[in-house]
Formats: sequence, structure tokens, C-alpha cells
Amino acid sequence: MIDGGRRLDGQVRIVGSGLLGASIGLRLRQHGVDVILDDASPAARSLAVDYGAGRLPADGDAPTLVVVAVPPDVTAEIVSRELAAYPEALVTDVASVKVAPLAELRRRGADLTRYIGSHPMAGRERGGAVSARADLFVGRPWVIAGHDDITYRRAAAVEDLALDLGATPIEMTPEEHDAGVALVSHAPQVVASLMATRLREAPDASLQLAGQGVRDVTRIAASDPALWVQILGANAGRVADILREVRGDLDELITALEQPEAPGSRRAVAEAIGAGNVGVARLPGKHGTSTVYSSVIVMVDDTPGQLGRLFTEMGEIGVNLEDLRLEHSPGAPIGLAEVSVVPEQEERLVKELERRGWTIAGAFA
Amino acid sequence: MIDGGRRLDGQVRIVGSGLLGASIGLRLRQHGVDVILDDASPAARSLAVDYGAGRLPADGDAPTLVVVAVPPDVTAEIVSRELAAYPEALVTDVASVKVAPLAELRRRGADLTRYIGSHPMAGRERGGAVSARADLFVGRPWVIAGHDDITYRRAAAVEDLALDLGATPIEMTPEEHDAGVALVSHAPQVVASLMATRLREAPDASLQLAGQGVRDVTRIAASDPALWVQILGANAGRVADILREVRGDLDELITALEQPEAPGSRRAVAEAIGAGNVGVARLPGKHGTSTVYSSVIVMVDDTPGQLGRLFTEMGEIGVNLEDLRLEHSPGAPIGLAEVSVVPEQEERLVKELERRGWTIAGAFA
Repeated sequence: MIDGGRRLDGQVRIVGSGLLGASIGLRLRQHGVDVILDDASPAARSLAVDYGAGRLPADGDAPTLVVVAVPPDVTAEIVSRELAAYPEALVTDVASVKVAPLAELRRRGADLTRYIGSHPMAGRERGGAVSARADLFVGRPWVIAGHDDITYRRAAAVEDLALDLGATPIEMTPEEHDAGVALVSHAPQVVASLMATRLREAPDASLQLAGQGVRDVTRIAASDPALWVQILGANAGRVADILREVRGDLDELITALEQPEAPGSRRAVAEAIGAGNVGVARLPGKHGTSTVYSSVIVMVDDTPGQLGRLFTEMGEIGVNLEDLRLEHSPGAPIGLAEVSVVPEQEERLVKELERRGWTIAGAFA
Repeated sequence: MIDGGRRLDGQVRIVGSGLLGASIGLRLRQHGVDVILDDASPAARSLAVDYGAGRLPADGDAPTLVVVAVPPDVTAEIVSRELAAYPEALVTDVASVKVAPLAELRRRGADLTRYIGSHPMAGRERGGAVSARADLFVGRPWVIAGHDDITYRRAAAVEDLALDLGATPIEMTPEEHDAGVALVSHAPQVVASLMATRLREAPDASLQLAGQGVRDVTRIAASDPALWVQILGANAGRVADILREVRGDLDELITALEQPEAPGSRRAVAEAIGAGNVGVARLPGKHGTSTVYSSVIVMVDDTPGQLGRLFTEMGEIGVNLEDLRLEHSPGAPIGLAEVSVVPEQEERLVKELERRGWTIAGAFA
């Protein structure tokens, strides 16, 4: 799959052998790169070496690229140390905030002609080399956060790194990056956590009524508190700005709901929900497009192979699945598969599935 | 599938021929029930008749059960009218709030010995008889909101209705119901809409970084504002209570993020995320259990039949899919399928899939 020749030349030194560091190492090793692994914890380092993510440091190491994959709060310190220790090397980091580390490096007087920050949008952050996979970055955006002190040519190795890992490089400034993740990652995390918090003391009877909606809204509330203290702390101002906007709208809505019959209350609610309609429609769809898909809801028995048969037959029918969502209701022996297809294929899919004996529980654009 | 003999006896009159009313009619017609359809709009009524959801009203109709499936704000008025028009019939409604209609019926002096409210948790509320499906309620919870003025025997036909439609009856008081949906449906709707609203003015570059997290948090923000004005208005007090709790936590978090280095700020963030962990863990899993599943992330090409092959082979391997989530990254020709299985099956599934040539991009409990 997405492979081709390797672009990186020379030794790569990875500092931090957690999920990201070890995953980078695993993939580069597959490309035959000489990968040096380091970590503040000798045990973590040895574990990642055992997993095949690279080798231990040795005298005479001369990396051309250093990748710092440590927690956000120590990123600048380690980047600074590495810049000093390897005066020929380009140094990057993969922390999920980009403005704060750059600013701290400036304060420290680090050599910014050899540093450029980056951030792989690698989704789940579950810890340790044990979770590492060589393909963690395949098909994921990899932000490269340029600044004015480094030349285009000097920074090229970071783009090579992203491409060698199968990721898609995206260039933006540190400010653009941090504003982006505040909006599409950090604020949603807070909102999901605050909603989920309300479920703590809920009666079982209430939870019994939970459908897919609340599950989706609160799914990421399961994230690691220690990690999020660092992420939110390092992007605090931008996240607070967004949360203050949320609070402003929330105040208006609470006021409206406290007097639901008062003039203007209905309009306030309608506008709040309507504004959300507009916002959610702006999220890019699959492949970055904003295509709208049709949904077909198919009933599936809860037995092994049933979904396999469904998708095999969808393949035979010749439609391409754009998205899929499974739903189960408490106590029910069956589930619903919501299948998204391009609108032109909806009618034929429904007809062909029904002809093959499937029960369609709904279809809509 | 879930079928068996029919339980309901006699004519069923359905008032309101939108999605819910027409879907109820379609299924009852399949059971051979004499279904009478009515609607304030003659055109909507005729459309539902054309779809086979029932017949037009006629002189001499004598329904034993009347189902009122009209918008929440006119529910009590129509229930009251039906109780008067059919003095032998049991009347129910399917509105998504239960306290307000009952209270208004009391005020109107309606015959509550023949009324019991209900609420099918039928998920998506997309309008009209054109979207109606006989299987809309199969496997869904159907709340029956009892009160003290109706006897158990008199209310039995509502449970029969739910069972004839393939739903799972759940008994709770109107108060329990409204508190439950405020928590697991109405407040999450508001939170999702307010978060999605922030995306309205976002730069494209920010949206490019959107992953599955923000998509999930904001998915239901696409809901219909007119419908939600009614739903939130009819359950305003309970929803406002929850939103005030959200606001209290939000205030604390904003304060912490405005001074991220102040004593106590990190702890406030950690506790907010930690409380969300506890809350989200309380949501019942599939079949009402709270089993924790292992996730296996499989890379899939974006070609028809690929998913079919994956699930067919999972069936051959003999593991049962508990949940499934598809992910696409913008610009990537491949996707990731996150497959949930019981923990005991994870290791074997990974081994067998890899043996068959699949690339596993991650596996964790």
C-alpha cells in the first residue's frame, strides 16, 4: 500500500519512545533507516527497542534528523537540548500544540534555523510502545508548522519524514495550527467531557434511554486527563476564547428555556439550533469534499457473518460505501447498519438489497 | 425476524400521518389491523394512504385504540379531542415529552382513565410519510409513561402496540421519562449545536484538521430547528437545569484556562476531564450491558467489496463484531475500520487478520 521509495537520508534519532515515537521508529525501520531511540526512562526505551522500533544510542551517532516525541510540557526543553547536542541535525517535534514550544525556544535562544515543529493528526492517543504500529500515520494529515527563521530547503527533511510515514503533509503557521486544533479538537474535548459529567449521577432509568446521539457527543470524554491537562494548558488562551463563545450562547439559551413562553424565547432556541446546522455542514466530508450522502438503514441479525454478507452483496451490487454506522438497542437481538452512499446510488441499493431479502428500516438523503 | 402473532384487537386510529404515524400504520397493516389514518392536512393524509399506511376515516369507525402522532405543542389538544370523539377508545400519544401533555390534559379535565402517554425512541426524526418504514421501531425502546388514573388492564393495549411494532416496552413515570430524555437527548442536542456553531466562521485551514472527534461531538447538530423548538420548549425546565450544571463547570474551566499556571488550574482541568471519564463509562453498552470491548483497527482500501471481504473473513474467523466505526482522512485513498470485539477475541482476530494479509493499524482494550 502507499509506499514507494524512501525519501529520508541518514540516521534518525527519536527522543521519546511512547506511542508516537515508537510508531515512527517502526515504520522507518521498515524503510531500512538507521533509527536511534532514546527516552528519559531506560525501561521504556528498551521496550521500544524490543518491539523493533530502533536501536539504543551509541558513541558516534550523527543523526541528520531528530524527532522529539515527548509530552507537550517538556517539548521545548528537549528540543533545545537536542539542538545543542547535534549541531548538524534538523530537529522537529510532534507535540499537539505548536505556538508555545516555538516561543519558549525563542526565549531560550535556541538555533531556530534548524528547528521546525510538526504535528501528526494521528487520532487516538493511547500510550506506550506496546500500542505502536508502523502504519499509525498512514493517510493522516501531518501539520508542518513553518516559521521565518528556517529555510525551505533546511526544513525539507520533515516533509520527507511525513511522506515516508505515509502521512499527508499540511503546511500552516503555528498560530493557524493552534487555532485549528483549539476549534476541532480541544474545545470539542471540553464540551464532550462536560456533557459526559452530567451522566455521573444519572438514574439507571435515564441511561436506559441513551441512543446514538449522546454516545457520539460524549465518546471522546473517555480521554486521558493527564494528557489533556498538558494539551489544554499549552493552548489555554485559544481554547478559553472558544469556550467563552460557547458560554455566551449557553447563557442565552438558558435564559430562553427558563422562560420558554416569553417573547423571543422560541426564536432564540431556533437560532441556536439553526446556527449549529450551518456550522456542522462546514465540516469537510470524506476526502476533504463536502458531498452530502444518502443514508440507507439496513436491519442486521446479531450473528457472525451477517455484516460480511451485507457488504459482500453491496460490493456485488456495485455501490461504494462512503460511511457506516452501527446501532444496537438495549435488549434487541438485532442491530441497524446505517450505510452512506452517494445519492445517485441510493435507490438502486435499496431495491437490490430488498430483492436479496434485506429489511430496509429507512432511507433518506 | 421478531414477529409472532399480533396482539392488538380492533380498529386502530392514527392521528398525524408523518414519519411516526405512517410507520406505525404500515406495520399494523402488515399485521392485518384495520388502520384509520387522519391528519389536519388532507394532502398528508392521502399521501400516507397511498403509501399503504391505512385507510381514510369513514362513518361508523369505532377504534379501540387511538394513537396521536402530532407535534408536541398540539398533542394535548388532539388527545383531548380524540378522547371526547371516541368514548370507548384508549388514547395514547408518541410525543417526545410526557409531563407537559399529561398536565395539560388534567387542566382540560380530560378522561385520564383512558389516556396513557408513550414515546418510541425511534432515533431519527426526518419528516413525512415518504420516510416511513414498517420496521422503524424494531428493537427500539418504547417508553410507556404510566400514571395513577388509568388501570393496568386498561393500558395493556399500548404495550400490545409496542410489541406488535417490534419495539421493547419500558415503563417509567412521565417525570422519569422527561428527566431521562433531558439528559440523554435534549441537553446533548444543545451542547452539540453550540459546539457546531463555533465552526460557522472557522477558516478552512482549521476545518481541514477535523478528525472523528469533532465529527462525533457535532453530528446531531444537523437536527431540525423547528422540531427542537417544540421539544426543548416542552421540557425547558429540566433541560435548563442540566445546562446550568454545564455552565457551572464551564465557568470553572474557563477560569482555569485563563490562568493556566495559577495554583489549582491544572487540577481543575484534570478533574473536569476525569469526571467526564466517569460519566461516559456509565452509558450502557450494546444490549444494555456495560461490557468494555477491545478495538482492532484495520486498514481498508476504498474500493467496493473491501469491507465485505473484511467482514466475511471475520465471520470465517468466528468472531462477533460488537461495534464498528469507519474513518477516512481527507485526501487519503484508504480508510480505517475500528472493529470492537470482546477482549477474549482480540488477540486471535489480530493474528488471523494479519495472516490473511490485512494491515492492523492498532489494537487496544
